[in-house]
This record gives sequence, structure tokens and C-alpha cells, in this order.
Amino acid sequence: MNEFKLIDKIKTILKNRVIGDDTAPIIVGNKTLIVTNDILLEGQHFLDYFPIDNLGWKAISVNVSDIAASGGKPKYALISLLLPKSKTHLVKKIYRSIDKACRYYHCQVIGGNITQSGKLGIDVFMIGETKKFVGRRNAKPGDFVYLTGPIGNSKAGLELLMMKKNHYEVFEKKLIERHLKPTININSSEISQNSTASVDISDGLSSDIFHIANMSNVRIDINSNKIPTTKELKMFGKKYKKNSFDYGLIGGEDYQILFTSRKKLKENRNLYLIGKVNPGKNVYLDGKKIKNKSFDHFSSS
Amino acid sequence: MNEFKLIDKIKTILKNRVIGDDTAPIIVGNKTLIVTNDILLEGQHFLDYFPIDNLGWKAISVNVSDIAASGGKPKYALISLLLPKSKTHLVKKIYRSIDKACRYYHCQVIGGNITQSGKLGIDVFMIGETKKFVGRRNAKPGDFVYLTGPIGNSKAGLELLMMKKNHYEVFEKKLIERHLKPTININSSEISQNSTASVDISDGLSSDIFHIANMSNVRIDINSNKIPTTKELKMFGKKYKKNSFDYGLIGGEDYQILFTSRKKLKENRNLYLIGKVNPGKNVYLDGKKIKNKSFDHFSSS
Repeated sequence: MNEFKLIDKIKTILKNRVIGDDTAPIIVGNKTLIVTNDILLEGQHFLDYFPIDNLGWKAISVNVSDIAASGGKPKYALISLLLPKSKTHLVKKIYRSIDKACRYYHCQVIGGNITQSGKLGIDVFMIGETKKFVGRRNAKPGDFVYLTGPIGNSKAGLELLMMKKNHYEVFEKKLIERHLKPTININSSEISQNSTASVDISDGLSSDIFHIANMSNVRIDINSNKIPTTKELKMFGKKYKKNSFDYGLIGGEDYQILFTSRKKLKENRNLYLIGKVNPGKNVYLDGKKIKNKSFDHFSSS
Repeated sequence: MNEFKLIDKIKTILKNRVIGDDTAPIIVGNKTLIVTNDILLEGQHFLDYFPIDNLGWKAISVNVSDIAASGGKPKYALISLLLPKSKTHLVKKIYRSIDKACRYYHCQVIGGNITQSGKLGIDVFMIGETKKFVGRRNAKPGDFVYLTGPIGNSKAGLELLMMKKNHYEVFEKKLIERHLKPTININSSEISQNSTASVDISDGLSSDIFHIANMSNVRIDINSNKIPTTKELKMFGKKYKKNSFDYGLIGGEDYQILFTSRKKLKENRNLYLIGKVNPGKNVYLDGKKIKNKSFDHFSSS
């Protein structure tokens, strides 16, 4: 049984339309809040190579990314900290990193709890606000498909980290930094004004894009030579004989936002037109149908 | 380092007045929301004796209890499920139990995620609404101290469960039921209208009452023969030669609410006058100062 089948089972029990999105809107008076929840758990989302100083930053950023993809700005966070007894001395470092991220994104930690646990984990609940919630269901044929920045760096950074080298070149350090300390570009007003559907790239472009295609019941065509990648990723590909384009396509944890817009928008360094929405279903890269290669924590392989 | 020292460290980093309460208020337009977060983690909050059918109910109830103690009604929940690979087949049972509790309390699961983990855990994030948020800081000398129901049953129920008997008497089953399936009595409008400070009894009366005494900077006097206990708890005390009164005082997980009120309220089966707020500090039982015997997951003992 894989993760998505588990979620399908839950849907049938809860009979709730919103389950399956990463965020949910709540209407309070004349305001719209967005809530989301994401955890970083030792052994699942990070291993011992991950510096403790960055862990809180990443846990917050991962949630900010979901809020931003829904067209919102983060406002409040609650932190459920799973803490091994042997690591109680790390609590200050973890919270300093959480605090740093919250100051950066202008959100406030207003609660949480600490539980003793075998593995270290930071479970974040975040509340944001928006003028208009953007889900995944409203992409329509004719819409343009945009990406907010280059992808693939995080996967390359992770692989570099795991090589545990004594010395890294400057371009390698940049790739590692993107993995350890993702920084979310919150252009939420642009997204909430213009987009019909939106998703953040956490599992990889070739997987996350299916959330929009499937839930909006459309075909998405993307153009491979429009997908932005950095010069650092190209240098990585050359040095380690890897196809850097694949890193963009299947690498996760980039935390860029993919969204569809009825209106054609002006491209800039935070906005790349990479494809088009068409009638039909599935996702096509340069006219060839691609497979949904999502990372599944519960797969048997 | 104990749990409360850890929380003190976090407070100094976040410089945030609300950390230390179990809930936090959020003002949205002219509405007040209450947010809280509590986890049930295998090995910490429950052991293998705990029936899986009740786990979701209890995880939801624990959070409803915090919302109710703040004078609120639960509205929305997000569930972060930590799921061992070997237990994926249990996901339906867990979610059916969550769904049952949410229907009972009139709240809705609107999101969450599933993460593979060594231990089973249900981390709940709950949002409620209230007309007036009740914290722990405004008890004043002269206030009356109320408890919403009998306490001590849950601890007795847990001990009975751990005896792993083949046969339980009727009164024993009732005590076990209170441990496995706590039901929160949401008289939130009464609490938000009348109370100056409030806390739910999750760690035990003699521990939780200090949250009000310390944060309101007052002395609380309680009268031992006013503390309500059930006839089942007395039968348990007699059969197993235990002091049933102690179970009320130090037993946790009762999820009754302790609150202070300026006005004298009419007692009923959901409202017991157990003491008075006075100038000074600490908590006194029949005139004798008591120690804060809270359960600490991080203590070295």
C-alpha cells in the first residue's frame, strides 16, 4: 500500500473534499485563512549529516512553501517537537533556527509542545492568510504554466552532502546551501491574483505537476528547454557525469512554485513560462507522456 | 533538564508571552480563534495495551479538552500521522476513530499528512472558536475555584488495564472506559462567560492547578472533601487497598476543567466548588502547602 492509496482510504472515511491538498482554506468572517502541516522526521526527511542549526529553518520553510503556493502569507506557527532524551541540549539550537526563519518570513510561533521520542522530529502547523485561496482544481485548457525559479539544486546538494567530502568547490557549496537552507520566495499576491491552480515542488516537478493535471482534469504540456536550471547544477552535471536536466525533473525539495494562469504573465528571474494546459489528461514533456515518479515513503522498494 | 525548564529556554528565545499556555488565541477580524496542539505517541502516551480503535478518539479528545478549557468550541483539525510501515493496515481503524470523535464534537478534519515512523503517533492540531478566550493569568483573590467533574478514574483505569486480567468487574470496566475513551464535556460558553482563569486536568489536579496559581500570582486553597470522585473509584480503592483520594489528586488524563470565577455559580453534576483564590502564592490543601508533582517526560528518574 503506498502513501497515495493510504490518503485515498482516509478520504473515503472522512468524505471530505479538501483532503489531498497540502493546505486547506478556512473562512473566518470576511477573512480567508490557510492552514497546513508538515513534519521533518529524522531517518525519513533528514539523516545525521543534516546540521542541527538549519533544521528549524527548513521545517518552517517547508510549511511556508505550502502556504505561499496557495497564494498566502504565513502568520502563525505551532511546533510539535519530538526530542530524544539524549538531545535535550539541542533544544536551544533548534528553536534559534525556528525563530530565525519565523522572523525572516514574518510569522510568529504561538504554541506547541515537546514530547520525548526515539527520533528527532519537528512537526509544524502553520496558519497563513490570503485574499484568495488557490487550490489545485481549477486549471483550464488554454492556461499558461509557470515556475517561480530554477529546480534540481536541492537534489544535487543532497548528493554532494552525502559524499562527505573534506573540501567542496564554491558551486558545490551553493548547491548544498539550497538543500540545507531553502528560502521561499513569497510572491503570494501574484499567485493569488493570477493563478487558477498551484502546487509547490517538494517531491519533484515530474511528480507534483500531476497533482494539478489529475485534480483539474486537464493535460499539461511542458517544454523541456524552458525548465530553468542554474549554472551550478550544470557544473555539477559536468563534474559528476550526471544529466542535470533529470535533477530538475525528478529532484525534490526545491520549493519553487508551479502554477497555471489564464493570463500570459511577463517572465522574469522569478517567473518562467514552461508550458501550457490542454484538454485531456496526463503530463507530456516535449510531446511525450511522462510517468508520475513520486517519492513514496511507504513503497516496498 | 526537565520539560518545564526546556519550555523556559524556548520562551527566552521566542520572547513570546503566550508560550507556556496549552492554547493560544488568534484575533481574525472580529472573531477569536483558539489554536492548540497535542500528540499521542506510542511508548510515551500509550503502550501496546491501548486498543487501536480508541486511539483516534483519545487524540482528538485531548485537544478538544484544551480548546474547551480556554472557553472555546472545536471547529477544525489537522492530523499528522506517524505510521510504522508494519502498521499501514491500521490506517482505516485509526481514521474511523478520529472521524467518530470529530462527528461527536462537531469539528472537521481539513488536512494533515502521513509519515513513516518507528513508533505510531497521532499529532493533532486543532482550531476552535470562542466569544472570549480564557487563559491562566487572571485569577484574582476572592475568586471561587470550580471543577467540572470527578477525577481519578483515568489513572485507576490505566492501572486496571495494565493488570491484563481476563475478567473485569462492571465498575472496573467503567474506570477503564474513562481512560480509553475520555469524553469532553464542552460547556465552553459557561467557561468563557464566567471564568477568570482555566486549565484542563491532563497531568493531575495537584500539578495543573499550579499553572493557574503561578501564572496568576495567587494562592489557591482547595478543600479535600469537596473534590468529586466516583463510587467506582472508591470501589477500586477498597478492592485494591489504594487511597482513592490520591488518585483524584495526582492521577492524570481526567480531562475535567478547573476554573476560577469571580461569581459564585450554582453547583450541579458538572460543576463542583472545590476551593478559593487568596492573596499569596502556591497551592494549599486543607491549609497544608502541597508540592507540584507534575509528570515530566524528560525527568531522569
